[in-house]
Amino acid sequence: MRTIIGVMGAGHADAATCALARELGSAIAARGWVLLNGGRDSGVMAASAEGASAMGGLVVGILPGDDHSGIAPGVDLAVLTGMGDARNVINVLSSHVVVALQGGAGTLSEIAHALNSRRPVVVIGWDPGEHPRRIGGERLAVVPDVSSGLAAIERFLEASKIP
Amino acid sequence: MRTIIGVMGAGHADAATCALARELGSAIAARGWVLLNGGRDSGVMAASAEGASAMGGLVVGILPGDDHSGIAPGVDLAVLTGMGDARNVINVLSSHVVVALQGGAGTLSEIAHALNSRRPVVVIGWDPGEHPRRIGGERLAVVPDVSSGLAAIERFLEASKIP
Amino acid sequence: MRTIIGVMGAGHADAATCALARELGSAIAARGWVLLNGGRDSGVMAASAEGASAMGGLVVGILPGDDHSGIAPGVDLAVLTGMGDARNVINVLSSHVVVALQGGAGTLSEIAHALNSRRPVVVIGWDPGEHPRRIGGERLAVVPDVSSGLAAIERFLEASKIP
Amino acid sequence: MRTIIGVMGAGHADAATCALARELGSAIAARGWVLLNGGRDSGVMAASAEGASAMGGLVVGILPGDDHSGIAPGVDLAVLTGMGDARNVINVLSSHVVVALQGGAGTLSEIAHALNSRRPVVVIGWDPGEHPRRIGGERLAVVPDVSSGLAAIERFLEASKIP
Repeated sequence: MRTIIGVMGAGHADAATCALARELGSAIAARGWVLLNGGRDSGVMAASAEGASAMGGLVVGILPGDDHSGIAPGVDLAVLTGMGDARNVINVLSSHVVVALQGGAGTLSEIAHALNSRRPVVVIGWDPGEHPRRIGGERLAVVPDVSSGLAAIERFLEASKIP
Repeated sequence: MRTIIGVMGAGHADAATCALARELGSAIAARGWVLLNGGRDSGVMAASAEGASAMGGLVVGILPGDDHSGIAPGVDLAVLTGMGDARNVINVLSSHVVVALQGGAGTLSEIAHALNSRRPVVVIGWDPGEHPRRIGGERLAVVPDVSSGLAAIERFLEASKIP
Repeated sequence: MRTIIGVMGAGHADAATCALARELGSAIAARGWVLLNGGRDSGVMAASAEGASAMGGLVVGILPGDDHSGIAPGVDLAVLTGMGDARNVINVLSSHVVVALQGGAGTLSEIAHALNSRRPVVVIGWDPGEHPRRIGGERLAVVPDVSSGLAAIERFLEASKIP
Repeated sequence: MRTIIGVMGAGHADAATCALARELGSAIAARGWVLLNGGRDSGVMAASAEGASAMGGLVVGILPGDDHSGIAPGVDLAVLTGMGDARNVINVLSSHVVVALQGGAGTLSEIAHALNSRRPVVVIGWDPGEHPRRIGGERLAVVPDVSSGLAAIERFLEASKIP
């Protein structure tokens, strides 16, 4: 079974966040992990898929809609849920580690669901605030950049005995 | 169509939060609104259902499971989803106004989904932090007690033209 | 806790099926049961809600969408799922007995989910075919009209010890 | 984007149906298509995953549960939904063509959802009955064996302009 790293973040993201998403996507693919995200052709979803895809990685998109429109070009496998935001729960349950880049309410819901489902979360490049930090405890790492994010992912995978 | 007020909060809540939930449930029922919550027999769910039920109000429980076990005694209508945490999305979509008492990751996910779906949120008796406040803007009210919570609910209902 | 009878059937229904749905809705309300259906303003959903509502009954609509548009006028409580067809699973899980009037693929999915979840099913006025009959066994009753449908519902409720 | 063929069928299947599932899984992998199924370690799910995996194909399992227990060994990518039977909707929405081997109520729900969502369905080796046939029309093919099933899949893919 393949190791799946979920990448969450804003659908409307600024250029710096998109650059970070692309770098992260490439690094995930380079390590042989599968990249999972929300699959839409915008923001962090499109950029992280593009990064992983350029590196020859496998990208799974968990889409809110029920047809093949608006899917990011880098997505290899489109899982269509037709369930709108409820697909955020699937995103985090399916990820061995969840990475959260800067985002809004959708990203916050994914951090919350991940912590509620005892999935480890790595926040890169922003501060999710006191409340998620307190809830998350040791299961939440807040780091400044992609390389420290990768180190945190690896620590969480080792702790979970995931190869 | 009946006006539905969703009440969210910890499954494992302390006595003070449960007392607040009971008071809020009673007040919601007294105004003729339907109380909607997560339906389980614990914490804020059980206490708010009990408060509304004692006042003769109607209580809808949106349950994570697929059978009739573990439902709070005050629940009149048990909606069984079998969808685990994904039912949190239904909780907030179905509520004209979402009220959040003190809670953990599940409650945070409901605040996040509510803001993502443009439902107004009233937080009573605790601080959800800077990030939800910034995302929520005018759609999020943070108030100290039940009476100011009811005033906030009424303002949101009026603004939405809900009778 | 209130007894919930789910009524399923075509969104595009002919006049005879709609008349049957109205009669059934009224009879469900007259017995003090809650009527649950898919909540949309068309076909069996609209007609059964209208029948129950005219008799002063309580009607719960489990909607596929995420806003308050297109809801049948007879619906008292709108549960918005935003989950499209996946809400069919909620319809049957939440019903103590599922009644299926003539319908297409959506209704067939609800019969199938009901049998899969061990909910009793009463089919009124049409034949769902050999395959559902064989799967359903004693949990599926096929009857010709509303009065024999009500008798079947009562038998199933008694067998389940639901008051 | 990869072409996804969904394979549905009984969790408790006899030896002949399992042999058919293995043969079908191998053939799907040999054509370079991705196999998607319900992911559990039993019946048609386990056998089709095994067949595809032995041929070096990629297997996506859409699981009803929220953890990594009970997953078929052939599954490469485990999508955990935590949504029970509601995941059947995801199975069919995500499949370019849905193949249904002999099954019970769960399989019938997937055929019904597929037809409701206008996904083509290929039934191999059994008769789903008059009602699904009538609903399905040209979108439903009933064939006797794997080779005619593959021909039907190819016809449906061509008609949908999927490479």
